[in-house]
Amino acid sequence: MSHTPVAIIGAGPAGLTLSHLLHRHGVESVILESRSRADVEETVRAGVLEQGTMRLMRETGVGERMDREADIDDAIEISIDGRRTRIGLTELTGHHMAVYPQHEYLKDFIAKRLEDGGAIHFETTVDDVTGYDGDEVTVTYTDASGAQQTLTCDYVVAGDGSKSPYRTPVLELDGAVRDRHEYPYAWFGILVNAPQTQKELIYGTHDNGFALISTRTPTVQRYYLQCNPEDTVEQWSDERIWSELHTRVDSEDLQVSEGEIFDKAVLRFRSAVTDPMQRGRLFLAGDAAHTVPPTGAKGLNLAVADVAVLAPGLVRAVKKGNRDLLDEYSALAVPRIWKAQHFSYWMSSMLHSVPGDPHFQTRRRIAELESVLSTEAGRTYLAQQYVGLDLPRFEI
Amino acid sequence: MSHTPVAIIGAGPAGLTLSHLLHRHGVESVILESRSRADVEETVRAGVLEQGTMRLMRETGVGERMDREADIDDAIEISIDGRRTRIGLTELTGHHMAVYPQHEYLKDFIAKRLEDGGAIHFETTVDDVTGYDGDEVTVTYTDASGAQQTLTCDYVVAGDGSKSPYRTPVLELDGAVRDRHEYPYAWFGILVNAPQTQKELIYGTHDNGFALISTRTPTVQRYYLQCNPEDTVEQWSDERIWSELHTRVDSEDLQVSEGEIFDKAVLRFRSAVTDPMQRGRLFLAGDAAHTVPPTGAKGLNLAVADVAVLAPGLVRAVKKGNRDLLDEYSALAVPRIWKAQHFSYWMSSMLHSVPGDPHFQTRRRIAELESVLSTEAGRTYLAQQYVGLDLPRFEI
Ligand SMILES: Cc1cc2nc3c(=O)[nH]c(=O)nc-3n(C[C@H](O)[C@H](O)[C@H](O)COP(=O)(O)OP(=O)(O)OC[C@H]3O[C@@H](n4cnc5c(N)ncnc54)[C@H](O)[C@@H]3O)c2cc1C
Ligand SMILES: Cc1cc2nc3c(=O)[nH]c(=O)nc-3n(C[C@H](O)[C@H](O)[C@H](O)COP(=O)(O)OP(=O)(O)OC[C@H]3O[C@@H](n4cnc5c(N)ncnc54)[C@H](O)[C@@H]3O)c2cc1C
Repeated sequence: MSHTPVAIIGAGPAGLTLSHLLHRHGVESVILESRSRADVEETVRAGVLEQGTMRLMRETGVGERMDREADIDDAIEISIDGRRTRIGLTELTGHHMAVYPQHEYLKDFIAKRLEDGGAIHFETTVDDVTGYDGDEVTVTYTDASGAQQTLTCDYVVAGDGSKSPYRTPVLELDGAVRDRHEYPYAWFGILVNAPQTQKELIYGTHDNGFALISTRTPTVQRYYLQCNPEDTVEQWSDERIWSELHTRVDSEDLQVSEGEIFDKAVLRFRSAVTDPMQRGRLFLAGDAAHTVPPTGAKGLNLAVADVAVLAPGLVRAVKKGNRDLLDEYSALAVPRIWKAQHFSYWMSSMLHSVPGDPHFQTRRRIAELESVLSTEAGRTYLAQQYVGLDLPRFEI
Repeated sequence: MSHTPVAIIGAGPAGLTLSHLLHRHGVESVILESRSRADVEETVRAGVLEQGTMRLMRETGVGERMDREADIDDAIEISIDGRRTRIGLTELTGHHMAVYPQHEYLKDFIAKRLEDGGAIHFETTVDDVTGYDGDEVTVTYTDASGAQQTLTCDYVVAGDGSKSPYRTPVLELDGAVRDRHEYPYAWFGILVNAPQTQKELIYGTHDNGFALISTRTPTVQRYYLQCNPEDTVEQWSDERIWSELHTRVDSEDLQVSEGEIFDKAVLRFRSAVTDPMQRGRLFLAGDAAHTVPPTGAKGLNLAVADVAVLAPGLVRAVKKGNRDLLDEYSALAVPRIWKAQHFSYWMSSMLHSVPGDPHFQTRRRIAELESVLSTEAGRTYLAQQYVGLDLPRFEI
């Protein structure tokens, strides 16, 4: 039976970033990840990095390829029935965002962790965690060969994504809550072999619903259309997709570029926040604790923000036996999570037309968009939340 | 049977301001008002003037007493569970607001109209309006002596408040709509003989509900408490009122000042927008066309904004026979009305706790307030809408 100061469940953005930050302060950890390295490195999910996430990558020596390859977004556009307004992110906030797919982020952190001698066990599934209320935690897992193993640790972090079973013990605490919200719409997402429609992302609202025009590479585009949460891929023929995209976004000076659609999927909209995010020696980070709808592109970035608080807390606890910051982890992380929830909810509500919504709400929603877009204060308020808050920094 | 270019129903802010603006451009009008002058001049209603309203008063020679007597608001405070954040209106926008009761505004305009030889018939109730689809309008009314009279005019303006029957003919037009929204809360308002709690207005939110601390004079205060729309005055004893005000607003450095309560009333929350606001020779202005909830204090100011478009339109039509601007009245006035509706709705939603709201919504709402209050962009976005947009100006 081996021992590690910190065991981490999951090699997603939360787990890998945490392990890397701990290592930089001399605290070792072991990551247990149920999927294969290839699978982790190939699954396409989030794609937008906040300014704070980029800075963290650079400052901790993982930013080189990102700086070389990421597409820089220094503006977005919001379109109302085809009338587009530019929001100059860099102009208004001094910051920009990067389009850098999550699996590229993960590749960089995996490579760096292995280069630094870090322990990542792929194809290794955690089955149980016990002892977090006592002095030592025991993690039981099935290794790549199918053998059952145990690992003891001082602290365990569940970075195992939105289906994490480790919320359950946390939610058993007095006063613990999981607040949830379901949205009356979803996104129908496609990947297309096509030239860029334009450099800047377009968030479009229209009576027919929302549409998002984004770009992956000069030849691969990612488009989203608001759809019904119950819709299936079969209901969306290529003709219907193109017709809706053109209707919702096109204008005299812009036409959505077409091409071969090679991926179709329905993306659910959900919000959830778990509070607190810890119990004894067990800590939740990233999607294990919270879910945001995709509108604000905050998912990966919130996982990073969590571990920017959790890492220094663990370092102090492991190296100095001082749990002060660790005990404050939830209290420090949760306000930012709610702000991100609000931002995602707000962007979603402003941009989606809800079928059956009273006409009052439709007109009010458009008036809200006009109020935001027509003033520098409104655009700045939106842009600052879009590029994201600075990450917290703590003395170790 | 007498004739006037413009007949105006109602000596409220809409009617009086319109008549005054028309006169300044050499167009005469007749105001018909069902109440007595004393009644109009004594009914306490709205109390906050936007910067644009103040400027219009000054520029058209009715601002002197307001400039002398009004309380200047150059900041407001928003309190979350007793923690107050200052929003420096003047600092952030270059403008301020004035606390100047609506009946004082009406007194000034009535005095000025009479001084200028204007015709205001008090205790005169309009019974019917016909002919607005043709070349001449006929207004039938009952005068102060109880006699039935008629007046013909080129244009008639219904500035007769929220129960106006003249919306009906407008709503008969193809495509005409009245969009409405009811809120799940109301305000319990009191007038108190007490010293000021503090100079700045406090908009307070608390688990128990909203509270507003405002001041009328150094010795008369106006306080509001969120209540149930079905509540009656009897349900709110003085003890209950003071206990709720202290709970919702007090903090270490501030205590709501108490005194003798001499007025109690329940104020309903409603939104409504009529679009268009005209038919032939008939025009709606102010509350006759739209209602806003009191949170944004936009009611009087929107009436003034309407007539800032309607007056030049009528002047051009009467003096030059050019209806271009008059035909655009609704198209020009309605976008501002929706922005004001949104602002009032937004302030209301952020500050009121809805009984039975999911915990998710409560936390998101507080996170939204924190996002607005913690950044200069957020405070500026709110402050600019609070002090109000500039009034539109048109060449005559
Ligand atoms: C289709 C899709 C599109 C998205 N688009 C965006 C976007 O545009 N912008 C955005 O910001 N966010 C987006 N997100 C969300 C974003 O991807 C997540 O917020 C982010 O991945 C959270 O990181 P995490 O490390 O907390 O969890 P995850 O990335 O989910 O990582 C959890 C890891 O734990 C592993 N694991 C789970 N259980 C066990 C176990 N028992 N033992 C061992 N390992 C285990 C999993 O295999 C997984 O690798 C999207 C998500 C999806 C699904
Ligand atoms: C209790 C209360 C508090 C308020 N508080 C605020 C606040 O804090 N801030 C804010 O901005 N707004 C507030 N409002 C709203 C604000 O007072 C109105 O928006 C404003 O008065 C609208 O002006 P108006 O000229 O359109 O209509 P009104 O002021 O309603 O004037 C209409 C006039 O028409 C007359 N009339 C009606 N029918 C006839 C007829 N058939 N013949 C002749 N005359 C007729 C009426 O007697 C009345 O004098 C409040 C309203 C109320 C009722």
